[in-house]
Amino acid sequence: MRNNEYVLGIVGLGGQGNWHRELIDSIDGLTVAGIYDIAPERCDFAREKGVRVYDSRADLLADQEIDIVLIATPNDVHKEIAVEAMRAGKAVVCEKPAMMSSAEMQEVMDVSAETGKLFVVHQNRRWDEDFLTMKKIYDEGMLGEVFKIETRVHGSRGIPGDWRQEKEHGGGMVLDWGVHILDQMALLVPSKIKKVYCRLDHVTNEIVDDGFLVILSFENGVTAVLEVGTSNFINLPRWYMLGRDGTAIIEGWHLEGRIVHAQKLDDKDIVPVRTASGITKTMAPRREDTISEEPLPVQHSDIRDFYRNVMDTLGGKAEIKVKNEQVMRIMRLMEACFLSAERNQTVDFE
Amino acid sequence: MRNNEYVLGIVGLGGQGNWHRELIDSIDGLTVAGIYDIAPERCDFAREKGVRVYDSRADLLADQEIDIVLIATPNDVHKEIAVEAMRAGKAVVCEKPAMMSSAEMQEVMDVSAETGKLFVVHQNRRWDEDFLTMKKIYDEGMLGEVFKIETRVHGSRGIPGDWRQEKEHGGGMVLDWGVHILDQMALLVPSKIKKVYCRLDHVTNEIVDDGFLVILSFENGVTAVLEVGTSNFINLPRWYMLGRDGTAIIEGWHLEGRIVHAQKLDDKDIVPVRTASGITKTMAPRREDTISEEPLPVQHSDIRDFYRNVMDTLGGKAEIKVKNEQVMRIMRLMEACFLSAERNQTVDFE
Repeated sequence: MRNNEYVLGIVGLGGQGNWHRELIDSIDGLTVAGIYDIAPERCDFAREKGVRVYDSRADLLADQEIDIVLIATPNDVHKEIAVEAMRAGKAVVCEKPAMMSSAEMQEVMDVSAETGKLFVVHQNRRWDEDFLTMKKIYDEGMLGEVFKIETRVHGSRGIPGDWRQEKEHGGGMVLDWGVHILDQMALLVPSKIKKVYCRLDHVTNEIVDDGFLVILSFENGVTAVLEVGTSNFINLPRWYMLGRDGTAIIEGWHLEGRIVHAQKLDDKDIVPVRTASGITKTMAPRREDTISEEPLPVQHSDIRDFYRNVMDTLGGKAEIKVKNEQVMRIMRLMEACFLSAERNQTVDFE
Repeated sequence: MRNNEYVLGIVGLGGQGNWHRELIDSIDGLTVAGIYDIAPERCDFAREKGVRVYDSRADLLADQEIDIVLIATPNDVHKEIAVEAMRAGKAVVCEKPAMMSSAEMQEVMDVSAETGKLFVVHQNRRWDEDFLTMKKIYDEGMLGEVFKIETRVHGSRGIPGDWRQEKEHGGGMVLDWGVHILDQMALLVPSKIKKVYCRLDHVTNEIVDDGFLVILSFENGVTAVLEVGTSNFINLPRWYMLGRDGTAIIEGWHLEGRIVHAQKLDDKDIVPVRTASGITKTMAPRREDTISEEPLPVQHSDIRDFYRNVMDTLGGKAEIKVKNEQVMRIMRLMEACFLSAERNQTVDFE
């Protein structure tokens, strides 16, 4: 750090590493010193962009100019690099999923405590506006008491053909997307998770999960349904939240959604639903005057606040937002998911 | 039966009993002799419609003209009336859910075997066209190998305020709607059900469930998600089926839906999804030319075929379609759901 400037080195310049590089270009007080990647073509790509390429990871870690190391490699080498970087005196920003296991996470937290160096995981989807909007609805009690929250991420391209389909590198959708939506759900519902039930999909391969269904039973009575699919040619809504007095929905990635609230209910004017085989009054739609529709209380965010919080924490001006204890809880939760799926049985959690 | 005519007596002329009465008016070879109901106002209603009202259930059962007794009472008296009717020499058509427990169902099946009298449950939603359309898609392999089927029935009126909210009368949504959608799912997937997981909702009351979520693990690899809700102000789709090569959806009660099939997938032209916090290629939507959309293979039905099958069975010309063994399996499945919900644990089934 020079003149209130922090300098960052990137280990691993794949798609995600490059996303960080471009983002950092727009953040005051933070600059990229250079990168290291084991793939020569990614080093060539960096040079084309005018970015310094270190000869080795050791070279990058030895650079006294660098304050922060960003780790954006495949998941299985996060731990090794994080430990090396902290021992070299660097703060560490690490891509998600942080580690391959809660045991690895503990090791890294121990080294962080020992060296006094910051280790923080890039849980970027805490800044997703759909999540922040649902959190606003929950926190402000806009639906009355919430009893069910459903979150889904659906695609139809299968899993990426790179290391993400290899188990030894930490592939699979629980680690790739589960780590985000479990983290979001844990932030949304401030309560202990008592039970975990998980079913894994293996549609395109038998090695890593390419989708999953997780049911969480929270102590406060909320049931959460979390689902990721990569063979879904039609998507179900991204978010669906049920309270006693209303329902909220976000359909897709771009905050398309609404809230529907109950108004007075008048049973006298039910028009039963008629299908080929019979009638139902219970499931008859509401008349327009017994419900009211409202727009979502859309929340906005700036993902650069992640790095601003890292810099403020290093400068002693703030507390880190993505806490390692939270990350550890989600690592353990993912392990509970794998155990539940293996046994086809619920697992006690907290 | 006179001149190939069957005569039916109705015990219980509530909403459902009256639906039967009106239906039977349009069925050749079947006539309603009269009704009995414990509620004087329902007897008055019948008289207004020109329908004979018996003085008592015993009177109705003693009428030698009557071949078939329809039981459309609250669930807790189905067994008693069914046994009495069969012992009085009548065939019995019984509203769903057939019985309060599998033990009651066994008792009724034993009396049917002993007396040689037909006992058949009115599983009318086997004739629902949405179900038959999804079955067509499944049976013809239109989506490739199916790995997941989701079925939902959502309303926002809570549970009906009559006996359906009283446990001792067999209220609650598992018995009311679960009996239909579990039966449909069991017919859809010809495989053993290995595991059952169930969560019950108690949004509007603590006495009976007013909604539920059930996950079934079939031996052939299919995972089924079944959900009923009565506090849902926005509905999720009625049916959602995932196969390796495509997805089918039916949105609501009236066969609004489509099939989307995979075509060649070209990774080169992925346009990543950008949200506030980052990008995803995995979940990038398909380009239009890598998928194809088709209409549903809509199936049609005639619910009068239920009674025609009953009459043909009585005449020795057909086999009964709604088999008691199937009904018993669903009774046991509902019991497994209640046990699973009580323990918050999966239950082994078959």
